[in-house]
Amino acid sequence: MIEAMHYAATGPGKRLRPAVLLAAAEACGGAHANALPAAAAIEMLHAYTLVHDDLPAMDDDDERRGRPTVHVAFGEGIAILAGDGLLTAAFGALAELGPYAGAAVAVLARRAGAFELLGGQAIDLTASPESLGSLASVERLHAAKTGALFAAAAELGGIAAGAPAATCASLGRYGLSIGIAFQHADDRDDQEFQELAEAAKERMRVLGEEARAIAQSFGGRGARLASIAAWFASQA
Amino acid sequence: MIEAMHYAATGPGKRLRPAVLLAAAEACGGAHANALPAAAAIEMLHAYTLVHDDLPAMDDDDERRGRPTVHVAFGEGIAILAGDGLLTAAFGALAELGPYAGAAVAVLARRAGAFELLGGQAIDLTASPESLGSLASVERLHAAKTGALFAAAAELGGIAAGAPAATCASLGRYGLSIGIAFQHADDRDDQEFQELAEAAKERMRVLGEEARAIAQSFGGRGARLASIAAWFASQA
Repeated sequence: MIEAMHYAATGPGKRLRPAVLLAAAEACGGAHANALPAAAAIEMLHAYTLVHDDLPAMDDDDERRGRPTVHVAFGEGIAILAGDGLLTAAFGALAELGPYAGAAVAVLARRAGAFELLGGQAIDLTASPESLGSLASVERLHAAKTGALFAAAAELGGIAAGAPAATCASLGRYGLSIGIAFQHADDRDDQEFQELAEAAKERMRVLGEEARAIAQSFGGRGARLASIAAWFASQA
Repeated sequence: MIEAMHYAATGPGKRLRPAVLLAAAEACGGAHANALPAAAAIEMLHAYTLVHDDLPAMDDDDERRGRPTVHVAFGEGIAILAGDGLLTAAFGALAELGPYAGAAVAVLARRAGAFELLGGQAIDLTASPESLGSLASVERLHAAKTGALFAAAAELGGIAAGAPAATCASLGRYGLSIGIAFQHADDRDDQEFQELAEAAKERMRVLGEEARAIAQSFGGRGARLASIAAWFASQA
């Protein structure tokens, strides 16, 4: 199971969420070193969602990033446990944030919990396609499934840097914007919701602008946040 | 999914782990009210382990406590997500412990993580019966699968009451002892490891004594811990 956890968390991938987290910490004047436990936590959290998402009872995917998925490589039982282990280890890593541990755990539990990330996955599992006919309902799903974890990444960066609550909330909006834009780009690449493609393209532009404006509110220290927003906008 | 989480966490059951947690808080002079978030956390953690344990890829159980298991009642995908949601909510509840949140999350992540609880479940899933031929190896499995969560319950009670680390460690040994004894009793009721039954009976007596001695070290405030130890010993 430990091997399966390692396999899941260290596969090829862009490490976007930890990059956002460290950029957010930097924007708040925090040292990278103090934010590293949170960066590890957000990547383990993301890895767990992929392991459980790929299971036969969920999306039933055999391959991810060119490699067999965890349940194909290690069996379904071990894949369930490995996902559970990564989720548990993510919270364990946040406990290393000292005085900020409580706030960090509260944010991750909310963003990754039943009313955001997991709620989005449950909708994905059970919703009929026609219930997702409008851009607004598609974006609500994107906000839960993808936006929530990018929002958590940005907020956790602020928390690890000791930023005040209002700043962390603003970072959360930054993360939500790039997360939703990212999922629009993903849909386009997967040719999903094609009848909404034009509207989604315009939304990606607007969301990218919103994220860039928040990044700029941090001045020079927000430069990395701004480049990340620009990269997301360039995917539109 | 929310309904499935509720179904899983509120079924019939003895609520032993929260009872141990509150008794441990009481032994340390803590108020029940301050320990309630941790009591909720340990029960949600326990409920999640049952939901995932019952899945077809794990123990494949259709019934628990006289009711259909979660995947039978709600489907396998929702059962996976509901377990994930309960695990996430457990850590979210610990975030409410204010200054003790970090220590509490660290303890639960370790006890419920890949090297204790989940490690035990992985062994359960993959070990050959002959590798469990001795009482010592059976007890190592019991310590991981059952002892770890009772240990976490007792430690979290101490942490929520602001007890020093040495006291929490002692409470952890109390929890481990009653947890292992509990699992021996469970094996006897399920007629597992029958060739070890006599030795296990003697171990249950010894473990009960150990737990009782730790409870008594708390003086009058440890009375409830002592009665719980006596109840576990009476199951022998």
